[in-house]
Amino acid sequence: MHAVTFQAAGEVAVEERPEPELRAPDEAIVRVEASGICGSDLHIYHGRVPVEQGFTIGHEFVGTVLAAGPAVERVAVGDRVLGCFHTACGTCVACLRGDYHRCRRGRTFGHGSKLGDLPGAQAEQLLVPSANLVLRRVPDGMAADVALFAGDVMGTGYHAVAHAGVRAGDAVAVLGLGPVGLCAVQAARAAGAAQVFAIDTVEERLAMAARFGATPLHLTEEDPKRAVRGATDGGVDVAVDAVGDPGPLELAISLARDAGVVSGIGAYAGRGEVPLGLAWLKGLSLRLGLANVIAHVDRVLALMQAGLLDPAPLVSRHMKLADAAEAYAIYDRREALKIVLEP
Amino acid sequence: MHAVTFQAAGEVAVEERPEPELRAPDEAIVRVEASGICGSDLHIYHGRVPVEQGFTIGHEFVGTVLAAGPAVERVAVGDRVLGCFHTACGTCVACLRGDYHRCRRGRTFGHGSKLGDLPGAQAEQLLVPSANLVLRRVPDGMAADVALFAGDVMGTGYHAVAHAGVRAGDAVAVLGLGPVGLCAVQAARAAGAAQVFAIDTVEERLAMAARFGATPLHLTEEDPKRAVRGATDGGVDVAVDAVGDPGPLELAISLARDAGVVSGIGAYAGRGEVPLGLAWLKGLSLRLGLANVIAHVDRVLALMQAGLLDPAPLVSRHMKLADAAEAYAIYDRREALKIVLEP
Amino acid sequence: MHAVTFQAAGEVAVEERPEPELRAPDEAIVRVEASGICGSDLHIYHGRVPVEQGFTIGHEFVGTVLAAGPAVERVAVGDRVLGCFHTACGTCVACLRGDYHRCRRGRTFGHGSKLGDLPGAQAEQLLVPSANLVLRRVPDGMAADVALFAGDVMGTGYHAVAHAGVRAGDAVAVLGLGPVGLCAVQAARAAGAAQVFAIDTVEERLAMAARFGATPLHLTEEDPKRAVRGATDGGVDVAVDAVGDPGPLELAISLARDAGVVSGIGAYAGRGEVPLGLAWLKGLSLRLGLANVIAHVDRVLALMQAGLLDPAPLVSRHMKLADAAEAYAIYDRREALKIVLEP
Amino acid sequence: MHAVTFQAAGEVAVEERPEPELRAPDEAIVRVEASGICGSDLHIYHGRVPVEQGFTIGHEFVGTVLAAGPAVERVAVGDRVLGCFHTACGTCVACLRGDYHRCRRGRTFGHGSKLGDLPGAQAEQLLVPSANLVLRRVPDGMAADVALFAGDVMGTGYHAVAHAGVRAGDAVAVLGLGPVGLCAVQAARAAGAAQVFAIDTVEERLAMAARFGATPLHLTEEDPKRAVRGATDGGVDVAVDAVGDPGPLELAISLARDAGVVSGIGAYAGRGEVPLGLAWLKGLSLRLGLANVIAHVDRVLALMQAGLLDPAPLVSRHMKLADAAEAYAIYDRREALKIVLEP
Repeated sequence: MHAVTFQAAGEVAVEERPEPELRAPDEAIVRVEASGICGSDLHIYHGRVPVEQGFTIGHEFVGTVLAAGPAVERVAVGDRVLGCFHTACGTCVACLRGDYHRCRRGRTFGHGSKLGDLPGAQAEQLLVPSANLVLRRVPDGMAADVALFAGDVMGTGYHAVAHAGVRAGDAVAVLGLGPVGLCAVQAARAAGAAQVFAIDTVEERLAMAARFGATPLHLTEEDPKRAVRGATDGGVDVAVDAVGDPGPLELAISLARDAGVVSGIGAYAGRGEVPLGLAWLKGLSLRLGLANVIAHVDRVLALMQAGLLDPAPLVSRHMKLADAAEAYAIYDRREALKIVLEP
Repeated sequence: MHAVTFQAAGEVAVEERPEPELRAPDEAIVRVEASGICGSDLHIYHGRVPVEQGFTIGHEFVGTVLAAGPAVERVAVGDRVLGCFHTACGTCVACLRGDYHRCRRGRTFGHGSKLGDLPGAQAEQLLVPSANLVLRRVPDGMAADVALFAGDVMGTGYHAVAHAGVRAGDAVAVLGLGPVGLCAVQAARAAGAAQVFAIDTVEERLAMAARFGATPLHLTEEDPKRAVRGATDGGVDVAVDAVGDPGPLELAISLARDAGVVSGIGAYAGRGEVPLGLAWLKGLSLRLGLANVIAHVDRVLALMQAGLLDPAPLVSRHMKLADAAEAYAIYDRREALKIVLEP
Repeated sequence: MHAVTFQAAGEVAVEERPEPELRAPDEAIVRVEASGICGSDLHIYHGRVPVEQGFTIGHEFVGTVLAAGPAVERVAVGDRVLGCFHTACGTCVACLRGDYHRCRRGRTFGHGSKLGDLPGAQAEQLLVPSANLVLRRVPDGMAADVALFAGDVMGTGYHAVAHAGVRAGDAVAVLGLGPVGLCAVQAARAAGAAQVFAIDTVEERLAMAARFGATPLHLTEEDPKRAVRGATDGGVDVAVDAVGDPGPLELAISLARDAGVVSGIGAYAGRGEVPLGLAWLKGLSLRLGLANVIAHVDRVLALMQAGLLDPAPLVSRHMKLADAAEAYAIYDRREALKIVLEP
Repeated sequence: MHAVTFQAAGEVAVEERPEPELRAPDEAIVRVEASGICGSDLHIYHGRVPVEQGFTIGHEFVGTVLAAGPAVERVAVGDRVLGCFHTACGTCVACLRGDYHRCRRGRTFGHGSKLGDLPGAQAEQLLVPSANLVLRRVPDGMAADVALFAGDVMGTGYHAVAHAGVRAGDAVAVLGLGPVGLCAVQAARAAGAAQVFAIDTVEERLAMAARFGATPLHLTEEDPKRAVRGATDGGVDVAVDAVGDPGPLELAISLARDAGVVSGIGAYAGRGEVPLGLAWLKGLSLRLGLANVIAHVDRVLALMQAGLLDPAPLVSRHMKLADAAEAYAIYDRREALKIVLEP
């Protein structure tokens, strides 16, 4: 079968790989109908996240179950399914607490040997361990390019909001309007945020956030702090940093109200200087980390089915799996919010 | 000034009463622009809730602050305000826990000496104790007949949902589509319920719930249990009983999923037979009681201002305060969901 | 091997049964060192919970892992382990929410075909499905008759308190001082209850609760309502009904403070008359249902290891497995709080 | 009357000040029986927290109500009371959320004009605004030098643990064993922490923590990370930083388990470098800020009355108010954990 593989920084290829085979009773094999290229794939593409040469990448997918082990009970052969971006065991100490994203035996699709040596979804077929936790049936009538968001980008936007405890009537700010930020804007509205301030520097992204119901604020041409102060009673209840750098984190801290929450969903790396004094004075809670998509996927799908979340506007392009090299180059030039690959 | 007073079961009158005067530093006087007749007023009208003859009734209001004591800081003379239906001290053991609805010194407007001897809002003027907690500014441009829901009926619908912990993506059932039930339908949607099942026997109410985004289910002509089972994975996350009788409570218990929540916002009285075995087997939480509107009013107003909650369709009639006797008779015949009285 | 089997109401026998064999990769076989007779075994013994004639009963156990399938990772052959009283799949919709006690595929040890057809623990050997979730290593130095409480009775006492959200400094009442009630008394103290009122009619149980730090109150010779009112500011934060009848539930409702919690851990059956009006007026939450022991077992073991929970005083007798018939008769006459059977 | 006043960095004096007078209906006047010198007083003493020359300092106190306005209902003239270290209005947006520590109109005793211009407690008499929220009756038989901890240092230790959501059976680490850290050790035990690791460099403080039930770990002579890793399953559930510097915060981040909580109760100032990547990778929540003592004081008092919290061992010295200058010098040399001043 064909599969997109990492070759070197800035280079992917479509290569021939053997079709996967079931090896454990809780595994399934999925014939991939659509897979997405995601911001985290760019970390691999740039060589920042090390992946072995020739490793199959990709972690967003929709497809059909070709085969399933005897312990697979939540989906069946022939089902059209979507997947979460990582696996979880369901029984370790982290899973028992509901922290599937911190599973001790979790493996991430398409991220090389360091994250579980699990070949990725940008391929014609895919082996799915822990299929009961990873796979969900696609609701009738849902398009593949919409459904694949549930287990990754939309699940992450939902997490940014849900993990921060947004309540109906709250005010929320979202910093950074990439796909995750835009999904967080939708998730905030779905959760009943009465006001959502969407902050970025790219006009089209601000315009899209406005269409999703947010108040767009240009980071540099407007004064987000002043605008948020003027429109709220002392700041937002929840400020989502969907970027992952100390700068946006600092702005998020300044936008949050006293005793509010900063939700750091963007991937921080290394060390960063933080205005600790201000965060302490305000009595903030900072909730950091990757999204717990397995915990959220059923609710996210229900919201997508009800039309309360709709990632369709984020899908910029559909391309052939065979054209993956070109697709990555386009995505790297930020010419698309989401590219969907089809076999 | 004119005021609507209770006379006897089935009889109210418009009588002359002295204008109120400030007696404590945290009080305000409001010139009433609009007051509502509410389902609880019918309990008084029917004599089920005992109120002294001649006592001024009514507990929903919008108006303008005529005078305010020196400790009133959240509103000022000249402000257009709405009120919550009861007062709270803000300092007793219940208030300190945030349970303003169980305030040890709380008084309810227009409910006679048993509930604090506080004259009601169906009058030209109104004395408001604890004005910092009871009053809020009406957002610019909000109609009086909409705003007066925030501190009573819509606050109650919001409570039914919020207190039950509805999360974005949940499935919710609402039993009983009176004003509170219809507001609970809206509040469930605002909080991100992906599915809302609205159950009643009155076609117009079912139709209104459908317009609010719910799936209407006729209690007797359809089979709500079967419909909910068919459309959910084992029942709803939250079942709201907006009626307050053992029958609806039993249906709510049967509709809730395992480990789900039954939110009993309808006023239960006396004793009732409950399917305890089923509730225990399912591992349900039953959250009962009056709404904590003071805790919710700011979020409810924010949602109303954003258009995510909108009680306007519930306002069936506007009448003159002088015609209160006729208004009560109409309301008693269930010919209106909400009647708003204007001086 | 020898196993205790149900024969008829009031009759158990020790019979020969084949040794269990592994059939699935997540199963383990345990050589039983000690098993407990529990209050729920009496329901079987009395024929109220129907179990097939000849079915092996018992659901509390400590032993050594004799064999383990390849998917068993949390324990290993040779480990000394204790078990939870039921299994869970870890992947169904209930497990994903953390509600392991409502697992769609859960099976209860020793409760016949209706609860999963899983032979019980009052035997020389035991087959354990879902071993990663069901089994835990016994902490070094912990006696078998203590450890076997973690997965059943003490886990239930912990749940009664934890699920009700007891906070350090709260006042708690426990109604019914059987093994679960006495464990709830300990759990309440461990969770920081500043006051624990323990209510029963049996002097020895009241005395034991007092030794555990509670204020004992005789149900009929004292006036528990008056005593609790006098010692608290309006009632207890949490009232635990460890009996499971409408009477104790009613007392629990009357003892709880406004906006407090009633934790119904005792097994209710059928229908019951409840003072709904009072519960509603107080704004109570009633949290009903079986304990989620799998979710709690690690914390319960940590507390037992630290000496903050200690069920040792509840163990009234040790008897031989061969003497099970006599043991059941003794337990049925309420001459023991806990009988431990040893091969 | 005599009062301790700030004069200059390193200099306090005992001066004559007029006795306070009631000016508002919710105020009380307290004749001070005992006041404490606290770590935050040293910030004033060192000039880091600017206070006007001649301003009366001190914010921990126990005494007797001499006079009370007509709106004071929770205490009465003649009552022996203790106070919280700051006031709150009970009605602003922060108080309504229960965030009394972020009250918009809150004033801190003895901290100069920047924090509300409210003369302090190291005096013979004290004016107490918002007396219903600030004052509580001292439980019968409780010593003054114990009671004064409830509204400040012990309330802060309790907050560090409660705000972080410690549950019975958790593992907790406390970094920094000054008075707040030692109280946090006690509070963690009271809340049911099965393991408490107490980290500092001062032998006597480590020894005291050990007497309170903690495992003492010397910061430099032992390897706290290794010790905590060895004794827990992946780190502590909650790591309390009771110091307030980036160094301890970094250690706290490294000690917390995946998806755990870091509770930053120590006062951070300015900016600090934080290992954001590690905190994000672990999925931590950082809960920062001052303690919400008004929200906790009733539970803290209940725990102190029950003997589950006991600050008595922290009281190193009793001195006369007239000797305040010497007392401050002693405290500044860290020769005492707590000095209590008596008139």
